[in-house]
Amino acid sequence: MIQDRPKDTQETPEADRVLQAIRQIVSEGRLPSDGRLPTERHLAAELGAGRASVRRALDRLEAEGLIWRRQGKGTFAGQPPDPTEELAAQIASDVDPLSAMEARLCIEPALADLCARRATGEDVVRLRKLAERTHDADDSDSAELWDGALHRAIARIAGNRLMLTAFTLIDEVRMGEDWQEKRHRARTPQTRAFYDAQHQKIIDAIDARDGAAAARAMREHLETLFDNLRKSMERRT
Amino acid sequence: MIQDRPKDTQETPEADRVLQAIRQIVSEGRLPSDGRLPTERHLAAELGAGRASVRRALDRLEAEGLIWRRQGKGTFAGQPPDPTEELAAQIASDVDPLSAMEARLCIEPALADLCARRATGEDVVRLRKLAERTHDADDSDSAELWDGALHRAIARIAGNRLMLTAFTLIDEVRMGEDWQEKRHRARTPQTRAFYDAQHQKIIDAIDARDGAAAARAMREHLETLFDNLRKSMERRT
Repeated sequence: MIQDRPKDTQETPEADRVLQAIRQIVSEGRLPSDGRLPTERHLAAELGAGRASVRRALDRLEAEGLIWRRQGKGTFAGQPPDPTEELAAQIASDVDPLSAMEARLCIEPALADLCARRATGEDVVRLRKLAERTHDADDSDSAELWDGALHRAIARIAGNRLMLTAFTLIDEVRMGEDWQEKRHRARTPQTRAFYDAQHQKIIDAIDARDGAAAARAMREHLETLFDNLRKSMERRT
Repeated sequence: MIQDRPKDTQETPEADRVLQAIRQIVSEGRLPSDGRLPTERHLAAELGAGRASVRRALDRLEAEGLIWRRQGKGTFAGQPPDPTEELAAQIASDVDPLSAMEARLCIEPALADLCARRATGEDVVRLRKLAERTHDADDSDSAELWDGALHRAIARIAGNRLMLTAFTLIDEVRMGEDWQEKRHRARTPQTRAFYDAQHQKIIDAIDARDGAAAARAMREHLETLFDNLRKSMERRT
């Protein structure tokens, strides 16, 4: 079957043979549980080929996203692990719902400020659409999801990679945890209407490119969430 | 030599033999370049021992910090990689000195606020000592180091794990990069005296447990750094 594949005219027959052979090793999963490929030297010996051909084949498969290389560790099948996820998993056990909310209060007003200074007209349209979907959601769970998407969009539009990473980290920890927060905060029609009005105020400030007002509106919104979270936790104890 | 070691009286002779054998494999570095140990099954076969003994030996070596386990990947010699470092390395190429400074402006005032609300008397003494060392430093490089230690101490005293992680992430990216920032910002006696006075103001606000004033003083300080960074970058172009 390998021989039946059309040959890449840019490759020598050996390079092509090596590429198909390694592709098959990866796709058939003939690898240890961590997905690590044999070393270049081993592959060259096993396939009776030069190391240059092996290296070229690995470059190609890496470009295709089938394998990835980790400095000093080797070559692995699949996608590299997401380091933000790994970091979130590492610290999750040291974070409780109140301290995650405190962290949101530390960074999201600043993100709203940056967002107001950088948002394009299209960005504002997208934010309004997400707020509408949050408002129109049939149940609390989908309202929660659209709400999360709205806050993430603000963080992305803010346009600072380090701050987006910090936001994502907090988001991953919150989502990864089985906190009763979500269920207990259970959005009643009253709180939902209130949150919708607060979202509106944040987006209006962003639309007016008023960073200070956007930060203030975001802070007010998160403080409401913080209060409701504290109340729902007190009710449980 | 293995036989000469005093036996742990709590272990059976087999468990003890297995523990010493694996300890030797790890300490002599007879492992692949990624430090991965053979599987439990392989170790048991190689050492002619039961898997329970092997598992117990690995537990012990993990508790001693000589090896670590990665879910689904295996057991490795040494310390687990720091996921914050890995994440910093991944995003560093997308971050420039100005956006790193912008991120500091987003989070460090909030950290100073939390710090003021949580600092103990001892914490304040430590902060004052770090400010003194920054002031007394013989050259710009050591002033830079003590200055960094002071900002890190504030982030730690703030007592929020997610925010400390975000701070560390920014710090790692800044330190990992060969930005001309450091050299060009070259602290003159004038800027050093000015930064010292700003540090003083931050710590005084923390000492007074005045979170809003601490946040304001930190913001002023970072805005000065931001201005000087911008000026030094304009001079270079």
